[in-house]
Amino acid sequence: MRAVIRRNKQLVCDEIAELQPAEGQVLVKTLACGICGSDLHALHYMEHMIDLSRRAGGGMGSTFDPTADTVFGHEFCAEVLDFGPGCERKLKTGARVVSMPLTLTPAGVEALGFSNRLPGGFAERMILSEAMLLEVPNGLPTDKAALTEPFAVGAHAVAKARLDKDSVALVIGCGPVGLAVIGALKAAGHGPVIAADFSPRRRAAAEKLGADIVIDPAKESPHDRWESLGVPKARAAQAMMQAMGKRFGRPVVFECVGSPGVLESLIEAAPAGAQIVVAGVCMETDRIEPSIAITKEIELTFVLGYTAEEFAGTLRRLSEGVIDVSGLVTGRTPLEGVAQAFRDLGDPEAHVKILVEPNG
Amino acid sequence: MRAVIRRNKQLVCDEIAELQPAEGQVLVKTLACGICGSDLHALHYMEHMIDLSRRAGGGMGSTFDPTADTVFGHEFCAEVLDFGPGCERKLKTGARVVSMPLTLTPAGVEALGFSNRLPGGFAERMILSEAMLLEVPNGLPTDKAALTEPFAVGAHAVAKARLDKDSVALVIGCGPVGLAVIGALKAAGHGPVIAADFSPRRRAAAEKLGADIVIDPAKESPHDRWESLGVPKARAAQAMMQAMGKRFGRPVVFECVGSPGVLESLIEAAPAGAQIVVAGVCMETDRIEPSIAITKEIELTFVLGYTAEEFAGTLRRLSEGVIDVSGLVTGRTPLEGVAQAFRDLGDPEAHVKILVEPNG
Repeated sequence: MRAVIRRNKQLVCDEIAELQPAEGQVLVKTLACGICGSDLHALHYMEHMIDLSRRAGGGMGSTFDPTADTVFGHEFCAEVLDFGPGCERKLKTGARVVSMPLTLTPAGVEALGFSNRLPGGFAERMILSEAMLLEVPNGLPTDKAALTEPFAVGAHAVAKARLDKDSVALVIGCGPVGLAVIGALKAAGHGPVIAADFSPRRRAAAEKLGADIVIDPAKESPHDRWESLGVPKARAAQAMMQAMGKRFGRPVVFECVGSPGVLESLIEAAPAGAQIVVAGVCMETDRIEPSIAITKEIELTFVLGYTAEEFAGTLRRLSEGVIDVSGLVTGRTPLEGVAQAFRDLGDPEAHVKILVEPNG
Repeated sequence: MRAVIRRNKQLVCDEIAELQPAEGQVLVKTLACGICGSDLHALHYMEHMIDLSRRAGGGMGSTFDPTADTVFGHEFCAEVLDFGPGCERKLKTGARVVSMPLTLTPAGVEALGFSNRLPGGFAERMILSEAMLLEVPNGLPTDKAALTEPFAVGAHAVAKARLDKDSVALVIGCGPVGLAVIGALKAAGHGPVIAADFSPRRRAAAEKLGADIVIDPAKESPHDRWESLGVPKARAAQAMMQAMGKRFGRPVVFECVGSPGVLESLIEAAPAGAQIVVAGVCMETDRIEPSIAITKEIELTFVLGYTAEEFAGTLRRLSEGVIDVSGLVTGRTPLEGVAQAFRDLGDPEAHVKILVEPNG
């Protein structure tokens, strides 16, 4: 079958071996699979990612060989083709499914999209674990179902935030991670939500997902809004308000950019006492001023991934339209166009999300 | 009256103006005042501290002039000498008192020890606010009462930690901040508490305060103990344990060193999911690897100071012996010896806490 393979830090279309589902596994046809920012990074910097992952004590670093062939793709919607031995077969052949990108094998858990042994979603077919399959609820289009994975990332970030009912949330960066956070915040009834991004296209997407205030940081600092929303920025002013018995919601900032320097800029600009939920993955060494974070009693909450419940809940909210992801898929490509799509995604104005359709 | 003054980045003994208590203020005689690590730093780097404080949005940066004379000292026990107009005089002249180092003045709040307008505790007398005075409970020696302020820092750090009943706590650095954290952890019934410090003297102090396991990091990494205490370090191993329905307490690390590099070493060495409470004040730019913190879902909680309740609670726990601070005062000096005491404190083996006795 055909797949897009990362080989020598290039993406090439080539044939790979056909797949046979083992015990408890299911063979699926890939209907659509999103290109993630981590794929863009991994194309060139996989070795560095693996080194960092090893220093983090395992994860994909343990057995993965970054110099061997890899088929990316972990944001997928697929169709059940065939069952391996010992399956319960609760779903029928032809059922549309999503799954967390983890397949159980006799040798351990394979992270689809970052595995040398099993292909991710940039291949015509994949092997999934029957136990992890979630049927796409009737009527949810494949495009939207493929957004379950990136939107689960937002649900997890919001679950890790300690928002109270009066909290003001600020989302820095409205790429796929920031948009997923906005969707999860509004689905959970939080607000006001301020969203900031330099790109008009991304600001429009943030507004469509329900952000209450959308800001172009080239024109205005989003941090100028805290006080008009009732959150004093300085610790002394906060103490004064509390002494007068007035309440204000806990300020929570979601860092969804992932570039060096952003964290320190937020430590300096956020209100005292702010929780900064770090969802943007900065792969470079970063510098901070701990004494400023201390003076302001900042909390940095680094988050990754999602739980099975958050993944399933996200699929449900997408299917019920609680999170409306219409319009976020801005491009589609067959396998032959994936290398070009990776290049196109370098421009934040060009796209929000491109889906690969290996059988399209 | 006599005081030790920071003048041209030196400590000099000199005369300063006599003090007159204004409305609601009390004139006190300084009985004892501890030398804090922040005093050592401020002697040479006050300008940098003020710059960082201004970038943090106020605090002492707003009106304080680091080039003008300053009398340090914010960890004091004092005796009431006289009352200004409008005082309630609930305490009698001669009463021993402690207070948070903040004096209310018509011009605002002065941070004693970091003020150009009012002297801190390295002076024969001070001006305190009557409303902030706490009488030293009968029988608590002055030496121990003077430790209320630094031990309140520990109470605050522990209050900001999200420990559960099974939590294992690791305290990195057993200087005054680390010892205060250990005291607060044990007073609150937490444990096991692991304490690590290169200094034998500090390790002995940690043990005396109730640390359950005391480690010399030159011989053994304290992080080698997590697993034998039931806390898996890797995220995958934690997930496995949870899948099997086994519980483990949340790992909490207290960073009480405050040197560049310590934070990143903890991000790399702590168990996945650890909360790192940053109580050590690192005044230099620091480097971190955000992607490692993300992979491990680390939380960095930067803390400073204490609340009025934490301060009062600490005095109570010292007076009841719940926190036994015997032996922590390892030196005493009159005003004339303060400059030498600052030098002596550079050696972690020489002292734990030196008290200045301006009237001694």
